[in-house]
Amino acid sequence: MFTRLDHVGIACHDLDRAVRFYRTTFGLDVCHRETNEDQGVVEAMLRLNGTDDGAATYLQLLAPTRPDSPVGKFLHRNGEGIHHLAFGTPNVDREVADLQAAGTTVLFTPPRPASMGSRATFLHPRECGGVLVEIVTKKG
Amino acid sequence: MFTRLDHVGIACHDLDRAVRFYRTTFGLDVCHRETNEDQGVVEAMLRLNGTDDGAATYLQLLAPTRPDSPVGKFLHRNGEGIHHLAFGTPNVDREVADLQAAGTTVLFTPPRPASMGSRATFLHPRECGGVLVEIVTKKG
Repeated sequence: MFTRLDHVGIACHDLDRAVRFYRTTFGLDVCHRETNEDQGVVEAMLRLNGTDDGAATYLQLLAPTRPDSPVGKFLHRNGEGIHHLAFGTPNVDREVADLQAAGTTVLFTPPRPASMGSRATFLHPRECGGVLVEIVTKKG
Repeated sequence: MFTRLDHVGIACHDLDRAVRFYRTTFGLDVCHRETNEDQGVVEAMLRLNGTDDGAATYLQLLAPTRPDSPVGKFLHRNGEGIHHLAFGTPNVDREVADLQAAGTTVLFTPPRPASMGSRATFLHPRECGGVLVEIVTKKG
């Protein structure tokens, strides 16, 4: 069960430039930065609003730390733009089990460490109408 | 000032098929359907969560009513996938004025009728790091 839209991931070549754009044009500020070496990305989180499950929705600006990372390959193929949607759930392990039982391919099992101490997995765009879907449970 | 992520627009060839996918795979249901002849789309709104500005965040599934509509052209170029991000604001007219004063190109002035009685305009992906940005004020 998804209880919120957790974040929208946006791929960019230059993280500082993207951060400046969102601050200058829309007044949105960075609340968190981190590097995820496993995924080959450096990321900045911009909080948009609180959600009625007690969490929040963010924009996640993503730049590759190496050209052969998933986001590096995405940028090479598509250029900058929206990369993925992340849905929040109280229990990503249960979601994974339910999706697998229904025949959906889950890319990482078990889920891996993700933004701000969360745990997350992904579903392939091929199975989700062209949308790369992340499923995330925030740090308890 | 943006107070929420209002919705994420997802382009699909077959609206009923996309609705079935989101219901069957993720348990997400349609709360509203409409046709926007001005934009050449038929759309289904799936409510994800309430937001702390008193509104909500939705997925907006979009299928073209004609191949030469913006969503029809997007599908021809890119295939199915995420089409745009819509930010919610209390006053889209003020946002438009502020953005234009700062030199940003706003695609529709004044804003046009959009989902569920809202009024909205768009910013071109060329000026927004590859992201088609919608700015929306919900029906008062």
